[in-house]
Amino acid sequence: MPSIDPDSLSPADRYRLLISAIVPRPIAWVTSLFPDGSVNAAPFSYFNGVSSTPPLVSVAVGHRGRIPEGVDRRKDTAINVARTGELVINLVPAEAGAAMVGSSAVSEVARNGLATVPSETLATPGLALARVRLECRVHTLLELPEARTTLVLARVLRLVAAGGVLGADGLVDLAALDPLGRLGGESYCRVREPFALPRPGS
Amino acid sequence: MPSIDPDSLSPADRYRLLISAIVPRPIAWVTSLFPDGSVNAAPFSYFNGVSSTPPLVSVAVGHRGRIPEGVDRRKDTAINVARTGELVINLVPAEAGAAMVGSSAVSEVARNGLATVPSETLATPGLALARVRLECRVHTLLELPEARTTLVLARVLRLVAAGGVLGADGLVDLAALDPLGRLGGESYCRVREPFALPRPGS
Repeated sequence: MPSIDPDSLSPADRYRLLISAIVPRPIAWVTSLFPDGSVNAAPFSYFNGVSSTPPLVSVAVGHRGRIPEGVDRRKDTAINVARTGELVINLVPAEAGAAMVGSSAVSEVARNGLATVPSETLATPGLALARVRLECRVHTLLELPEARTTLVLARVLRLVAAGGVLGADGLVDLAALDPLGRLGGESYCRVREPFALPRPGS
Repeated sequence: MPSIDPDSLSPADRYRLLISAIVPRPIAWVTSLFPDGSVNAAPFSYFNGVSSTPPLVSVAVGHRGRIPEGVDRRKDTAINVARTGELVINLVPAEAGAAMVGSSAVSEVARNGLATVPSETLATPGLALARVRLECRVHTLLELPEARTTLVLARVLRLVAAGGVLGADGLVDLAALDPLGRLGGESYCRVREPFALPRPGS
């Protein structure tokens, strides 16, 4: 069968291969606070849950590329989260796709025009466009220098939802959330036509 | 806006809330080796990439519930991976959905009838049903006792694909992979109608 040794690829091609294979990925549109109180918003798709008790999630924040030696290579998100110990993970509705992608180029909300909303438990605000926000406090920052990545493990203090997004069962309604999934290349998907695969015996 | 403090919920409801919000999730159908050489296969959707250089992925393996004190609470996957230092992450095509869910109840392939295929770089085999397999060596095992979870960080040594799944560009072809995404409850989705959201300026 065809196979690839990822180490035989360039870093850019290795990245493209991995994101084409690990699909579909949820998207954490992370807001964080600069020291002057201004807000940063940037999307990350190396994001997922870790555990329920306590409610932990993880976001891998890779360093910036092409940075001179001696300069802090971490992205604003990693620097801000390390200093404040908090972050808001905004889930991304499909209608906010263009705004989300735009924030990967211009992340300061003062420059990209994203509207923010106060959090209930944090100084860091969330994004008005999000229909579900996870207000999180840092649990563990795992620096992986070899991988030029900060793996943020964070505890969810509060889940805040727009009206109509929490169903009568207390869970997030998929159709009301209308989440974007991240695929390979520059591709995304909407999540439609969910179907049940019950566990045997359940 | 409606909000929920996850700590106010029961563990089961907290789990249901989180998996309803963090969607869509990729699925790692993990094969691992028992000491007698037999094979275990179990699905995990707290799975994602971590970095590209080196190519790291993460899989959160929660402990088993309702286990008496003094008994090892880790799942077979966590025990096997810790002992052998290796695992195969099998991506799950939609057509294998029922088999994948079945393996969450009966994970030993000798009992659930899943066919295996040898790996190129590991003693641990993969699953014949998978169209892409990531042969991985453990990079870091992060035990989170408070969370009753083992967070496996693993390095991808080899990506093996079924015929026709790697495109002319060397990347995994989404339609040929036909991956399942994990949603809330017992729900899954197929990934259809991908669309591009190019980064500004790219």
